[in-house]
Amino acid sequence: EICERLLAETKAGVLQNLKVLISAGPTREYLDPVRFITNRSSGKMGYALATAALRAGAQVSLVSGPVNQPAPMGVEIVFVETAAEMYDAVLAQADHSDIYIGAAAVADYSPVAVEKTKIKKQAEQTSLILQKTKDILADVALLSNAPFTVGFAAETNDLEAYAQEKLYKKNVGMIAANWVGREQGGFDSEQNAFEIFWHNGRTSLPMTDKNQLAEQLISIIATKFNEKNRV
Amino acid sequence: EICERLLAETKAGVLQNLKVLISAGPTREYLDPVRFITNRSSGKMGYALATAALRAGAQVSLVSGPVNQPAPMGVEIVFVETAAEMYDAVLAQADHSDIYIGAAAVADYSPVAVEKTKIKKQAEQTSLILQKTKDILADVALLSNAPFTVGFAAETNDLEAYAQEKLYKKNVGMIAANWVGREQGGFDSEQNAFEIFWHNGRTSLPMTDKNQLAEQLISIIATKFNEKNRV
Repeated sequence: EICERLLAETKAGVLQNLKVLISAGPTREYLDPVRFITNRSSGKMGYALATAALRAGAQVSLVSGPVNQPAPMGVEIVFVETAAEMYDAVLAQADHSDIYIGAAAVADYSPVAVEKTKIKKQAEQTSLILQKTKDILADVALLSNAPFTVGFAAETNDLEAYAQEKLYKKNVGMIAANWVGREQGGFDSEQNAFEIFWHNGRTSLPMTDKNQLAEQLISIIATKFNEKNRV
Repeated sequence: EICERLLAETKAGVLQNLKVLISAGPTREYLDPVRFITNRSSGKMGYALATAALRAGAQVSLVSGPVNQPAPMGVEIVFVETAAEMYDAVLAQADHSDIYIGAAAVADYSPVAVEKTKIKKQAEQTSLILQKTKDILADVALLSNAPFTVGFAAETNDLEAYAQEKLYKKNVGMIAANWVGREQGGFDSEQNAFEIFWHNGRTSLPMTDKNQLAEQLISIIATKFNEKNRV
């Protein structure tokens, strides 16, 4: 049925001659030289997407946060730590990419001040001032020669509303949304499922292995990209 | 010389019939279901100490934060995530252990409130209220039947002063101090070096592989423990 058809398409090289840029993994926002704010992202989904895009014939660049994933053969990787570094690395490549898939779990906020020496345990309570990081997805989508841009939304609640808001406010081509903090799927898991939204359409990819899911998502991205750009 | 003599002692089973409790790795202090504060600890040093203690004849229990380390054969492991969980797991075993080695990089502060749903990116700035976590090392050392307690101090500055303060204020048996945020050694590195302090004495273990260093440190701990308890 549909999944098998999509898989067959992937294998046929639906991304031949296209440059695909993918970001993956978490970021680290340092408080001091040893402590940082991060998240549960393992990078598995982004790395699986890189492999699937490569198999679909694309030339693939990966911008990766700190992960424990084997580097896929044939993919060019730039490693970064912080949200600011990821912003710079993605924006440096986005304007000469055909497709950008923002699969990284980039920190929304980072500490205003990074202490140069380790903060000592003293006061009973302390507070940390955080400021919004730059919005990579929105800024890529705003480029005059923007690639076809795919964002992710990992939500604990109100998944569809947040995903639709992201799709229209940031003016991206597609949002792949998934639940986190539930029994199955999400961060640091072998499996995941997506609700996929584009302008005037949607589809569901049910819970499966992240490698399978990546193949399916790459097929959908290729279909939408080709509808728009290669008819 | 001294290192070889110490290594030879380790191999002879200097911890025979002793119960050694070791904590290792970082902790995660959650802000919401997906984000947390953590640190650069890889758990390598704690896991190497567990292996070295086992080779020295001890019965070894490990309380471990989230790491990517292979579990040493023959060591009983309890996995925890947060500083509070690590406190409970260590205190549950400390009073029937002969030696406690606190090699974990436990968070000093954790968020006062853990949000039940993912915090959304809204305000330009936000602040996070943090409160001190319970002091595992000090509370183990305060037990009426406290084990011989070894603490660690990872410092970016004033290493000796901080290590001596920790030794006397918390009334522990020994502090192994190391530099972090330098070119060599420290967190997430294959190598490390220690400045070791006990009451009225000190020694240095120069930069070497963490497995070697663990053997040397276990020998010194055994010597000090046996001086005190088995003369």
